[in-house]
Amino acid sequence: MEHTHEDKLLHEADGKRTFAVILQTDDEAMRCLKEFAERERIGGAQVTAIGALRRAKLAYFDCETKAYQAIEVSYQVEVASLVGDIAVGPDGKPSIHVHAVLGRRDGSAMAGHLEEAHVRPTLEIIVTESPGHLWKAKDEESGLALITL
Amino acid sequence: MEHTHEDKLLHEADGKRTFAVILQTDDEAMRCLKEFAERERIGGAQVTAIGALRRAKLAYFDCETKAYQAIEVSYQVEVASLVGDIAVGPDGKPSIHVHAVLGRRDGSAMAGHLEEAHVRPTLEIIVTESPGHLWKAKDEESGLALITL
Amino acid sequence: MEHTHEDKLLHEADGKRTFAVILQTDDEAMRCLKEFAERERIGGAQVTAIGALRRAKLAYFDCETKAYQAIEVSYQVEVASLVGDIAVGPDGKPSIHVHAVLGRRDGSAMAGHLEEAHVRPTLEIIVTESPGHLWKAKDEESGLALITL
Repeated sequence: MEHTHEDKLLHEADGKRTFAVILQTDDEAMRCLKEFAERERIGGAQVTAIGALRRAKLAYFDCETKAYQAIEVSYQVEVASLVGDIAVGPDGKPSIHVHAVLGRRDGSAMAGHLEEAHVRPTLEIIVTESPGHLWKAKDEESGLALITL
Repeated sequence: MEHTHEDKLLHEADGKRTFAVILQTDDEAMRCLKEFAERERIGGAQVTAIGALRRAKLAYFDCETKAYQAIEVSYQVEVASLVGDIAVGPDGKPSIHVHAVLGRRDGSAMAGHLEEAHVRPTLEIIVTESPGHLWKAKDEESGLALITL
Repeated sequence: MEHTHEDKLLHEADGKRTFAVILQTDDEAMRCLKEFAERERIGGAQVTAIGALRRAKLAYFDCETKAYQAIEVSYQVEVASLVGDIAVGPDGKPSIHVHAVLGRRDGSAMAGHLEEAHVRPTLEIIVTESPGHLWKAKDEESGLALITL
């Protein structure tokens, strides 16, 4: 599938860049964010977005099994909130961590860790870089890569 | 109804302004934001807020009918998240796009596109301007005015 | 209980600081934020976070009784959104106001005013200072300390 997303540098000051990343129908948000972060070599940033999706995959971290359980959302939803960060993962590549709140037709809400977000018709993402990098390291207890300072 | 909202420029650097817009009981948030954006000639900004409402109107975009369906929230709710942006609409005026997550008395959540938000007792909004303008154009497929870069 | 949270100044420009505050298992977020804000003498800031909790206490403001009603969340949840602000309270000390959206195992969402958030395994908080202070004063009608400009 060809990627249709557009991005634009809105502002740069003191080495701190702000981007708008505008996704369109059929873009998958996590893949677009990863490609964007790798191309722009982003080592530390905050991400926020609103928009709508034709389907999504949320996840819940089960502390007993130390694994994410998938929650399939197989219908059109509003993205009421999408908040996350970009850090440098243990492999040296950008690691994207995003959580989302989704609104259904009746107004009821779903929330969780975001694994896939298939856009329709738009997702308006703002990425605010921090000059200092954020680094992730493997946490022995949870088995997850977590930000460490 | 007389508007009681207050706003204050918190910071300005490199042509990028940050405002606090504090709403009070009986203010309607979407109208206050529109008046504020027109008066300050805001052409690109991010909006975040928390607070509480005595009632609200959310909406869900139906991709079949290409129209928003209203979801009336006729009781007091917490505003757990309000995230959005201000862009320049096809008519040259500020276009406000906001999504919200609302919390009910029992803690259950509602989420969607925000059409009306009647404040009680407060809504604390932070508006962060981007020096570059964001522009909206009509998207033929959805019929909506969407940000284009 | 010993506090294990780490924080780091990511950026400072024009007297505006951005911090990452990374909490770990058994940290309580509201107490850590209060200690952090007092130590760094923060008089105005925005707060955002994502992560997960082993338990939490949300609250809903009842306008009739002018009191918060507690909503106990006694199980592991994702923090899909945590948004808030730090202002100077009527007592001259930092006053932290945070709302949160929590995601349960089945993806359903809870939302409200945040009173307690017991972290597991991480909560990644970004604190963005505003150079202008935000001040709170007692609102006679609601009985709450609200931001005034």
